[in-house]
Amino acid sequence: MWKSQSRLLHGLRVLRVQGYALDAHVCNMTKSSRNPQALCALLGVRHPIVQAGMVWCTGADLVVEVGRAGGLGTLGAGSMYPEELDAEIQKVKAQWSGSFAVNVPLLYPAVEAHMETIKKHKVPVVFTSAGSPRKWTGFLKSAGATVVHVVSSAVFAKKAEDAGVDAVVAEGFEAGGHNGREETTTMCLVPEVADAVSIPVIAAGGLHDARTMLAAFALGASGVQMGSRFVMTQENPAHQAFKQHIAEAKAGETRLMLKDVTPVRLLQGPEGSFYDQVAAAELAGKGPDALRALLGRGRAKLGMRDGDLMEGELEIGQVSALLKDWPATAALMENLVDDFRALGTVKMAPGFSWDALL
Amino acid sequence: MWKSQSRLLHGLRVLRVQGYALDAHVCNMTKSSRNPQALCALLGVRHPIVQAGMVWCTGADLVVEVGRAGGLGTLGAGSMYPEELDAEIQKVKAQWSGSFAVNVPLLYPAVEAHMETIKKHKVPVVFTSAGSPRKWTGFLKSAGATVVHVVSSAVFAKKAEDAGVDAVVAEGFEAGGHNGREETTTMCLVPEVADAVSIPVIAAGGLHDARTMLAAFALGASGVQMGSRFVMTQENPAHQAFKQHIAEAKAGETRLMLKDVTPVRLLQGPEGSFYDQVAAAELAGKGPDALRALLGRGRAKLGMRDGDLMEGELEIGQVSALLKDWPATAALMENLVDDFRALGTVKMAPGFSWDALL
Repeated sequence: MWKSQSRLLHGLRVLRVQGYALDAHVCNMTKSSRNPQALCALLGVRHPIVQAGMVWCTGADLVVEVGRAGGLGTLGAGSMYPEELDAEIQKVKAQWSGSFAVNVPLLYPAVEAHMETIKKHKVPVVFTSAGSPRKWTGFLKSAGATVVHVVSSAVFAKKAEDAGVDAVVAEGFEAGGHNGREETTTMCLVPEVADAVSIPVIAAGGLHDARTMLAAFALGASGVQMGSRFVMTQENPAHQAFKQHIAEAKAGETRLMLKDVTPVRLLQGPEGSFYDQVAAAELAGKGPDALRALLGRGRAKLGMRDGDLMEGELEIGQVSALLKDWPATAALMENLVDDFRALGTVKMAPGFSWDALL
Repeated sequence: MWKSQSRLLHGLRVLRVQGYALDAHVCNMTKSSRNPQALCALLGVRHPIVQAGMVWCTGADLVVEVGRAGGLGTLGAGSMYPEELDAEIQKVKAQWSGSFAVNVPLLYPAVEAHMETIKKHKVPVVFTSAGSPRKWTGFLKSAGATVVHVVSSAVFAKKAEDAGVDAVVAEGFEAGGHNGREETTTMCLVPEVADAVSIPVIAAGGLHDARTMLAAFALGASGVQMGSRFVMTQENPAHQAFKQHIAEAKAGETRLMLKDVTPVRLLQGPEGSFYDQVAAAELAGKGPDALRALLGRGRAKLGMRDGDLMEGELEIGQVSALLKDWPATAALMENLVDDFRALGTVKMAPGFSWDALL
């Protein structure tokens, strides 16, 4: 077995070298910054796999485990008070000297405090979302951070590139949590964004295994971001009842809701749960004010961290239908990388190289 | 150039042979019927590319051109009277002796007449949709047809397999026209369907070029079906004003509407158009009866065939945002195949072989 695998890998390397000439012929505009290795260098990691900076579902232990396994772990600052973010960053740094990231929704009320914390701790990579990247990109780059902005359209991707970010996450309609109004799916979004910008594109939405990783690379992505898959790990601080509920979720049980307030993909709870209340209000044509009153405050923590499946907000992607277990993060990462390598695919879109992946 | 390409192709063949051993090791349950070559044999074509059997946007000329270029052309019977389907099949057979298909929505009122026409003309491949595959699969198979059922969930895929169909189309949320209530995107749907059944899976929704084809194969598909891409061809009988409107469409301008009647993805028209009227009615919480009254009859033909962008129904996929031209069908097919070959990817998911693609 080893012999045939070794012959195969040798073959791949030879082919890769021969392949470059063909690439150049196929596509004059070879976007060299596009290969996964270049993205890995930007992010300071071995593998182009990003654990998303989700609200209520990240923490130092998860981030450290992802980092040790060669990926990029991310703290989701959107659900942390400034002093909590500070403490979590310190916990990460006490255990892990490698790269990690913080995700900051730019509409967060205490965004200034978060940015100062990020600067103070010299956080290597910052993901910004839900707001214009113009205001903070310069600040973050002078603080030495790599800046990645999350977008749901090619128009916003171009604006982010113009604002000077280093890369974008193109997040499709199927992703969990907050999402774009355009409803563009990963399959349609990634090629359009890849055509629109020259910086690396990290695909998100529906990605959870080697197959979907490969599909993302086929579409023109240089890296992948997974959210739901990392909620379903032992080290994730999400409530066990939420994880159990995700393991039982079926296709069609998540829905993009509250579009007239702020679009968010939610998972059904038991009958009569918050999800059903929102669905009924929307079906009855209730306006933004009524929906905001129904939403109230604190429901995301209630659902995802405290495990209240009835009254809490349960944010998760469509891919929840395919997630049945919550392995140790280290085992998940090892399986993702091993399964991907086992696919043995060697050549993809022009400009793509496998160096960071094989 | 030719020399290096020839060396590359030789390399691919060598690798492919070595690859099989590795495949068997990686995945014990090798679904051998899953490779694109097996699907091509089932469909009677050279390339695993299906032109979807859309309402109002198919015809004999399109079907013949797709067939001549090695793909599977399909007549969409859902918008034809029985005598029209008969005439179109005769037109196809007068010009083309190879394989082709008819798509029959099983809720069509005159479904019996269509089925008799299909039997009379010995149509090689039949796609069924919008209804249970139990009733007609036996009839069609005794008439000698390969039967493919269109599904929007893994549950329906399994039911179709149990009903004896030869393959399924897994059509994601991003696809144009009528669509599932689950809203599952191609990225999430294809892996789930591929895991659920042993028969070949044809991916649909968002597919339009070599990149998206490759992504579909990565997800576990054995073939691809494209709809919107084939609306945008010279031979397509869609109205020129509709094609021009699609070429100008941007991301976010299609939406899955009329979910409480029969979900359909529509493209915005000019301000105040039918799309806006439906959006306003849905926002106001109007029920199914009011929506059915607004829909009325004949709007699909009015929009797509007669080019009335204001009052007609404009059915097209999200991928309309990426379609800018309407080439000759032969040129489109040649580009798809050439671009795909140029990617030069050799090994994919277990059980996958490139024989039908290289």
